[in-house]
Amino acid sequence: MRKFVLHRAKSIITKATASLFNPHHHTHPSSSSSSEYYYYYTRTLNRFFTPLDSFTSMASHNSTPPLTVESLNPKVLKCEYAVRGEIVSLAQKLQQDLQANPGSHPFEEILYCNIGNPQSLGQQPITFFREVLALCDHPTILDKSETQGLFSADSIERAWQILDQIPGRATGAYSHSQGIKGLRDTIAAGIEARDGFPADPNDIFLTDGASPAVHMMMQLLIRSEKDGIFCPIPQYPLYSASIALHGGTLVPYYLDEATGWGLEVSELKKQLETARQNGITVRALVVINPGNPTGQVLAEENQRDIVEFCKKEGLVLLADEVYQENIYAPDKQFHSFKKVSRSMGYGDKDIPLVSFQSVSKGYHGECGKRGGYMEVTGFSPEVREQIYKVASVNLCSNISGQILASLVMSPPKVGDESYDSYSAERDGILQSLARRAKTLEDALNSLEGVSCNRAEGAMYLFPRIRLPNKAIKEAEAAKKAPDAYYASCLLNATGVVVVPGSGFGQVPGTWHFRCTILPQEEKIPAIVSRLTEFHKKFMDEFRD
Amino acid sequence: MRKFVLHRAKSIITKATASLFNPHHHTHPSSSSSSEYYYYYTRTLNRFFTPLDSFTSMASHNSTPPLTVESLNPKVLKCEYAVRGEIVSLAQKLQQDLQANPGSHPFEEILYCNIGNPQSLGQQPITFFREVLALCDHPTILDKSETQGLFSADSIERAWQILDQIPGRATGAYSHSQGIKGLRDTIAAGIEARDGFPADPNDIFLTDGASPAVHMMMQLLIRSEKDGIFCPIPQYPLYSASIALHGGTLVPYYLDEATGWGLEVSELKKQLETARQNGITVRALVVINPGNPTGQVLAEENQRDIVEFCKKEGLVLLADEVYQENIYAPDKQFHSFKKVSRSMGYGDKDIPLVSFQSVSKGYHGECGKRGGYMEVTGFSPEVREQIYKVASVNLCSNISGQILASLVMSPPKVGDESYDSYSAERDGILQSLARRAKTLEDALNSLEGVSCNRAEGAMYLFPRIRLPNKAIKEAEAAKKAPDAYYASCLLNATGVVVVPGSGFGQVPGTWHFRCTILPQEEKIPAIVSRLTEFHKKFMDEFRD
Repeated sequence: MRKFVLHRAKSIITKATASLFNPHHHTHPSSSSSSEYYYYYTRTLNRFFTPLDSFTSMASHNSTPPLTVESLNPKVLKCEYAVRGEIVSLAQKLQQDLQANPGSHPFEEILYCNIGNPQSLGQQPITFFREVLALCDHPTILDKSETQGLFSADSIERAWQILDQIPGRATGAYSHSQGIKGLRDTIAAGIEARDGFPADPNDIFLTDGASPAVHMMMQLLIRSEKDGIFCPIPQYPLYSASIALHGGTLVPYYLDEATGWGLEVSELKKQLETARQNGITVRALVVINPGNPTGQVLAEENQRDIVEFCKKEGLVLLADEVYQENIYAPDKQFHSFKKVSRSMGYGDKDIPLVSFQSVSKGYHGECGKRGGYMEVTGFSPEVREQIYKVASVNLCSNISGQILASLVMSPPKVGDESYDSYSAERDGILQSLARRAKTLEDALNSLEGVSCNRAEGAMYLFPRIRLPNKAIKEAEAAKKAPDAYYASCLLNATGVVVVPGSGFGQVPGTWHFRCTILPQEEKIPAIVSRLTEFHKKFMDEFRD
Repeated sequence: MRKFVLHRAKSIITKATASLFNPHHHTHPSSSSSSEYYYYYTRTLNRFFTPLDSFTSMASHNSTPPLTVESLNPKVLKCEYAVRGEIVSLAQKLQQDLQANPGSHPFEEILYCNIGNPQSLGQQPITFFREVLALCDHPTILDKSETQGLFSADSIERAWQILDQIPGRATGAYSHSQGIKGLRDTIAAGIEARDGFPADPNDIFLTDGASPAVHMMMQLLIRSEKDGIFCPIPQYPLYSASIALHGGTLVPYYLDEATGWGLEVSELKKQLETARQNGITVRALVVINPGNPTGQVLAEENQRDIVEFCKKEGLVLLADEVYQENIYAPDKQFHSFKKVSRSMGYGDKDIPLVSFQSVSKGYHGECGKRGGYMEVTGFSPEVREQIYKVASVNLCSNISGQILASLVMSPPKVGDESYDSYSAERDGILQSLARRAKTLEDALNSLEGVSCNRAEGAMYLFPRIRLPNKAIKEAEAAKKAPDAYYASCLLNATGVVVVPGSGFGQVPGTWHFRCTILPQEEKIPAIVSRLTEFHKKFMDEFRD
């Protein structure tokens, strides 16, 4: 009875709401005056207000219970995001301690290796990019003589170009919901130059960093917990968080640590089969390349197998390619999934593919600017229209981020005034990152019970730590996962912040942590020595 | 049987997923070696992979059906956003026509009165704000001598102040997920100065415009379609869109057009009662003040009644106060709901209240910068933690938008070098907007069958149009709502873009449109004459 009543209430309310916003969608008596219209709609509306029966009336006259955690959306409660989780709260507490009472801890500063936030650790922005942004923010200085002395000639020229692409040169106006058309043209040209295959500016959706783009795709694809999204394990926790927030099911596939975090199609097949047997409709496959937190770079042949698998199984391929500039292994190269699928002969109609890009990563690391885009190919016009609608509800992404996304995909070229300084800045950063990755990787591999795959790309190392049982028991007593316990001991002893592997997912019974390669190069030796000393003590204390 | 199977699948998957990410939350056999851990978790995992029974196994071996509109999340399909809907697509088409074939339509340009996007229509940004933004984008010019000649002294000083508030002066780093602490201090001080009551920087969440803040609150509060959010009708369609996307129910309360879009507590009571009788848990009340699309400014006494009502009924008060600077009626004043509730003696523990603010509106109109904040008071620490968690998944809002939000809440003061130019720019814009509002209001009220309430604030007029039956029938034949039909005729005849009232909701059987007051002042006479001429012809054609 109760069920029926609720169903009836819902159906009436849905209809009443629909008629409120789309009155013309309703069939209704043909009317000869607008007052009849009024009458008709008033009647429709009154149905919404008619008490249903004594059961539901009992619910009236009570005020809404006070807002508690228990009464929040359970999807929000379920969501977790380890990168800014418990360990960061502890780090902030320690930092406050150090400020209030210098010398209160056995270290002088907190070294944040928890998050891919290069400029927070001293990485300098690319000068050319910032010149253009400043000029677009305050275009009235563009034709003043002092500006010539302060800004490079090509940054002034680029700013004019960009302003001319913006209707009314209005950098303070909402743009088209996909982003400014001229900037999308530039980005599409950049993708073409990168891939050697055509790119369409109408496929580009500019977003405030890559995260909102990921949320949009999850929102589009997930209908209920019976819809699954394939994610690598370990994964970047944005994916698990977004899937939880949208009420879907994360379907894991495991990267093979023994083969350098290899992505095996046989594993995909096995997991897909199992998920389907469990009644899950797997709708999309997330691939993170270069990997986060795992740092591997996929081989082109492997990517072909993945494309073939998605094509065969009808999966949307969600390609997180935000680390495409971050390649450190000389024998590795980034290939976009779009390039790979086009080189296999698959066109726009053959495979639904979304590529995510961000201004936060690469050599530029402009996290705070919140720029990024997704390139959406292989969807029907009707589905595309729905993506556009969702984008339009938020009006547009921030214009500075949009401009920066266009710069990242179209940096200075040989012959431009800024080219030499730009390429020196870029190469300096990337070469230093490669050195830092190698130093940290070697240091980790020299620790007892620790093994660390090569950082081929991205900004992270994800070493496996084999913890003694005594340590595991200690962790249990502290009600922490063993790797979370290790990470908090490390932080308390050294000030080094890493994220426990349990925040990313890992083969059950194995333990890891994610450590960025981002602290400035002169700090790396201190991190290595603190980590080495801590680990030795920790093992001495807990060795079985 | 099927239901039970699905339930069982869901429960198993949920548990498996939980153990994947929080292995220590599970009870498990006490283990003496990590290989036992591995065994335990493998077992847990295997449960996830066990076929349930013959029913679900039947589903395997089929590839996922191709992605169609029908297989998208139905919440996305249900969502509508009229401000960028069908009428804007038509406008863009006409604009392309005009570019390709000048003279192809009876007008030379499209006049966008559909959206509150001032700078797209020629409004100039506030110089001081843009100076500070440019300097923060490219801080290396701050101590160069040419900079003194290009920038005001107080903009340079303010840029230094802001940079000093940012750890490492890194404007390209992710900030705290609520926004940079120093900027929140400035904003809190601005709120205190505005209201005369304390504000806590820890209550401020900086966001990419107000829209993501509204989405966050809807995400937090809505569990299912049985959770209702009270919204004014007419409303800004962000609310209906966000409620639809989060799967809740919009519970309408009608603003009284006859009393200048009055918000009557008796109407709230009636509608709340009805919703509760229908089994809806009404969780929050949205108030838009000054009103969008309706342009009214609430009287303080009325606001007190609303606060009392929310307090009594246990509703979260969601106060959309993004037009707080846009007041045109000399007898009206903006009072924040926080000020009103504090002046009634209600403290932080008495009423959950969220105030939304944006850099997109006011006299600055910096829509493209996507800056804004919400001030969250009256929530328990546990609930606040959940809001913070959701904010942290997206890392932070864009830093330029954060800086601009601090500038808006702390503009130049008397004595500052920029004060005179700043206040001249501000007053020029606001006075011009007031004149434009009055001219358009008078023009609308002079049209046959049209009545338009006073634009006391915000950026909109929402005239009622009484359409002849013949026009309504014509609309029916064209499968459009009568006001959508009127708006498309107006656009085709004059190039003026307005949004049909049906996109905002209206008393059934009444018809309206929303028209911004934003076209530049010299264009207003042309709009008035085109509109007047069109309306006369329309009425002549369709008069009953």
